[in-house]
Amino acid sequence: MCEANAYMVKDGKEELLMESVDLIEPEDNNNSYRIMSIFGEQKIVKGRIKSMNLVAHKILFERFV
Amino acid sequence: MCEANAYMVKDGKEELLMESVDLIEPEDNNNSYRIMSIFGEQKIVKGRIKSMNLVAHKILFERFV
Repeated sequence: MCEANAYMVKDGKEELLMESVDLIEPEDNNNSYRIMSIFGEQKIVKGRIKSMNLVAHKILFERFV
Repeated sequence: MCEANAYMVKDGKEELLMESVDLIEPEDNNNSYRIMSIFGEQKIVKGRIKSMNLVAHKILFERFV
């Protein structure tokens, strides 16, 4: 399976938001993102995408400054 | 491998931007994205992320309206 883990980067540290994320959809004019795991878990992440590395299964979010 | 294909959605149609995308990084204050394939190809995509479905290996971009 090709899902990825989502992290929030805070002060240079990566805090796990959700494992096995499948779906990512922007909300609120791209000021937040709805992420959904393959297990049906959902979360709204306030912030923006910092980077994604699909081969490494990693999605990084960051807060707006 | 878990790369995905990137498409631009125009008038409801999906136009392929790049296959086998590995890295995605926002640029220009999230008004464009640099996408890179596992083959080293790079492209700047003007627009925003419309949705991502990692299990389906699909990243959709759309232009700002």
